Amino acid sequence: MQDIQHYIQENKDKFLTELLDLLRIPSVSADSKFKADVRKAAEFICEKLKTAGADSAEICETAGFPIVYGEKIIDAALPTILVYGHYDVQPADPYELWNSPPFEPVVKEEKIYARGSCDDKGQVYMHLKAFEAMMATNTLPCNVKFMIEGEEEVGSDNLGTFVKSNKEKLQADVILISDTAIIANDIPSIDVGLRGLSYMEVEVTGANRDLHSGVYGGAVANPINVLSKMIASLHDENNHISIPAFYDDVVELSGEEREAMAKTPFNLEEYKKDLDIDEVRGEKGYSTIERASIRPTLDVNGIWGGYIGEGAKTVLPSKAFAKISMRLVPDQQSDKITELFTKHFESIAPEGVKVKVRAHHGGEPYVTPTDSIAYLAAEKAMEESFGKKPVPTRGGGSIPIVALFEKELGLKTVLMGFGLDTDAIHSPNEHFGLFNFYKGIETIPLFFKYFSEESSK
Amino acid sequence: MQDIQHYIQENKDKFLTELLDLLRIPSVSADSKFKADVRKAAEFICEKLKTAGADSAEICETAGFPIVYGEKIIDAALPTILVYGHYDVQPADPYELWNSPPFEPVVKEEKIYARGSCDDKGQVYMHLKAFEAMMATNTLPCNVKFMIEGEEEVGSDNLGTFVKSNKEKLQADVILISDTAIIANDIPSIDVGLRGLSYMEVEVTGANRDLHSGVYGGAVANPINVLSKMIASLHDENNHISIPAFYDDVVELSGEEREAMAKTPFNLEEYKKDLDIDEVRGEKGYSTIERASIRPTLDVNGIWGGYIGEGAKTVLPSKAFAKISMRLVPDQQSDKITELFTKHFESIAPEGVKVKVRAHHGGEPYVTPTDSIAYLAAEKAMEESFGKKPVPTRGGGSIPIVALFEKELGLKTVLMGFGLDTDAIHSPNEHFGLFNFYKGIETIPLFFKYFSEESSK
Repeated sequence: MQDIQHYIQENKDKFLTELLDLLRIPSVSADSKFKADVRKAAEFICEKLKTAGADSAEICETAGFPIVYGEKIIDAALPTILVYGHYDVQPADPYELWNSPPFEPVVKEEKIYARGSCDDKGQVYMHLKAFEAMMATNTLPCNVKFMIEGEEEVGSDNLGTFVKSNKEKLQADVILISDTAIIANDIPSIDVGLRGLSYMEVEVTGANRDLHSGVYGGAVANPINVLSKMIASLHDENNHISIPAFYDDVVELSGEEREAMAKTPFNLEEYKKDLDIDEVRGEKGYSTIERASIRPTLDVNGIWGGYIGEGAKTVLPSKAFAKISMRLVPDQQSDKITELFTKHFESIAPEGVKVKVRAHHGGEPYVTPTDSIAYLAAEKAMEESFGKKPVPTRGGGSIPIVALFEKELGLKTVLMGFGLDTDAIHSPNEHFGLFNFYKGIETIPLFFKYFSEESSK
Repeated sequence: MQDIQHYIQENKDKFLTELLDLLRIPSVSADSKFKADVRKAAEFICEKLKTAGADSAEICETAGFPIVYGEKIIDAALPTILVYGHYDVQPADPYELWNSPPFEPVVKEEKIYARGSCDDKGQVYMHLKAFEAMMATNTLPCNVKFMIEGEEEVGSDNLGTFVKSNKEKLQADVILISDTAIIANDIPSIDVGLRGLSYMEVEVTGANRDLHSGVYGGAVANPINVLSKMIASLHDENNHISIPAFYDDVVELSGEEREAMAKTPFNLEEYKKDLDIDEVRGEKGYSTIERASIRPTLDVNGIWGGYIGEGAKTVLPSKAFAKISMRLVPDQQSDKITELFTKHFESIAPEGVKVKVRAHHGGEPYVTPTDSIAYLAAEKAMEESFGKKPVPTRGGGSIPIVALFEKELGLKTVLMGFGLDTDAIHSPNEHFGLFNFYKGIETIPLFFKYFSEESSK
């Protein structure tokens, strides 16, 4: 692999410049005012796939944002790796908390600051450049396909249809995704588990109009007070979720598994210090790592109602809203949890209010077998590039489509991510280390090499 | 009083046209972007006082918005009525719920639709026009002073200083305010009680930045979940406020008083129908009228935190906020309640979050003696203009300055308002009936007449 690593060293600056161009495109899929930019990002990816050496690359229309597909087939007899990623990003607000504009990337202290720098444009781009490097040095050891979507941050609503109707085209031996994190730059790790997701939006309505809190206050249900009570009741005093049957399908880990997990390098004091909190808070009876990986959760992601402007307004509002999401673990099913939540939330609405519940999107939890060829190849690749054997970890995040791929394509996924939990993805000042960006580009060709070797055994 | 009522009939259209001009000025005191407009409204009032015949009218600067002062002294030996009102208005948002723009007044079905049409520009303007009518027909029976402020909707922060430093100038025998409602157009009433107010803003902070709910969810305190729990805990299962010592100073009414109150014309079914609610909700053991008048309350007026935009964002927010106000009754004191709330709210904050509490503004509760000359004069005036004796009622709203006037000027206040509880003040589509506007203009001179007569006895 001499030439390829040499090629990567030679082109570092070019790779970075290109990524910054991609990061300048505000491809926020959740906000319709960025519609045109999301498409622009798709075109950018498509173009780069072609110039990197793909046989073909196309923009595949969907009912929502397009999916970029590209491929390089060198020999039908060889194994095929399907790379998945997404070019859309999370909304960047609150803008005022960014030290530099989210869509004007800057490199500071060896880090790239921009929305999407890590999640997931930066990590997608590692794959495009690794592919370019393998092509340029004639070292691509197998076939490769790329499927880069633009709706991951809003639930991949149209990916399912695309996958179902393109099973032929998407045939492969494994799916490779870089949309997760390693424990630290000197502690490489591979996600072997993901949590599922149910994302709900609720609306509580009291009176048919905003009222004067002096005239009606105390006599009519206040939807904010009521919503607060309803949300509060969703956890008991042990921070156990109180939705009936919520835990029915949760797979409890064995004592051995929990012991193994407890060995994962983790420093609670540093964790608290980084977040500036005096204490962690979660489900009683579980460690912080467990709470964030093997246990389901319920979090309010947003709440609003009444007067939220400057100053004071004595209004008794007509409506209050909240976005509430639940992280799921094996063997919970998103649809079932969504239904349990809806039934329960409607059932706890007191007299005097009307409640509406709707589901935004969901995804199923997933686990990767650590004895699979794909996992072993990823392990070898990282061990070689990091000089250290990676630790298998259970991530808390959700990549709903991983379960979809297994169901529709019968393919396992390897989650070989290169970000860090401290990269502030989904937050102001999201960033991605140059070390991580380049390390990814170096490691990916090694995965291709070892996966091909292992497969041919 | 023939000529004066004649003058009023003759000038109805002119009065209305002028009021509509005043309503076109978006004098929102809570929102700094309307700063210039608030001042414009002050100048408008000042100008109209002069043209109506005041000896003098001036714009008195304060640390905030100016106070318009004007007077007509016909004979120092005669009694003096001090008219108070405010030219600032509540914020008009949410704009999308207005059937016509809040600052483009329209007259529909005998009602004036505009922000401030009732609260309080419309009611203030009744006084200006009643004054004009008395001047034009030489029937002003006593001295009159006007003090019209521009910060009532944001807590009258600078009125106290003004009153304290102008006691001489403000000397009078009674204060007359029209900023309340009658029960119905065929059931005149006079407010003899007002609730006080403590208005708080709270901020709950979890981690020092927004986090990915997948990576940290379940392991770190979610400020929205925590705030909801804290708000929920402020009422017990009987909707009794659970802040320690909160009820200590509440004056419980006697059985007789409650019986008398129960006689107030009130139709619960119509009330629920008007608000489109299946059930009322309030403190156990009290009627709807009692809950909205003689009992203190705690309402969240606004709440916000996390992602409240379009679509879904899986964020674990760093902060959550709420505006919470409490309506107070005799003998609760605003400062004391503010302190009790602050102490309690800080004390219930769980580990893992930081809580900030600040007070916006407050006001003391107030009761008008029904055997006072001023009350009797108002009663006679309304009985004559409405053809029906007015009912004494306890209003739920707060006009904090009423208690201030008693303390600083030693003056009682008569709350002779002409609005309706259904006028949607503080709400979209605020309106004021033409019947009410003109009835006010007709009634006010009668109050002047009877108050002068009673005083000279």
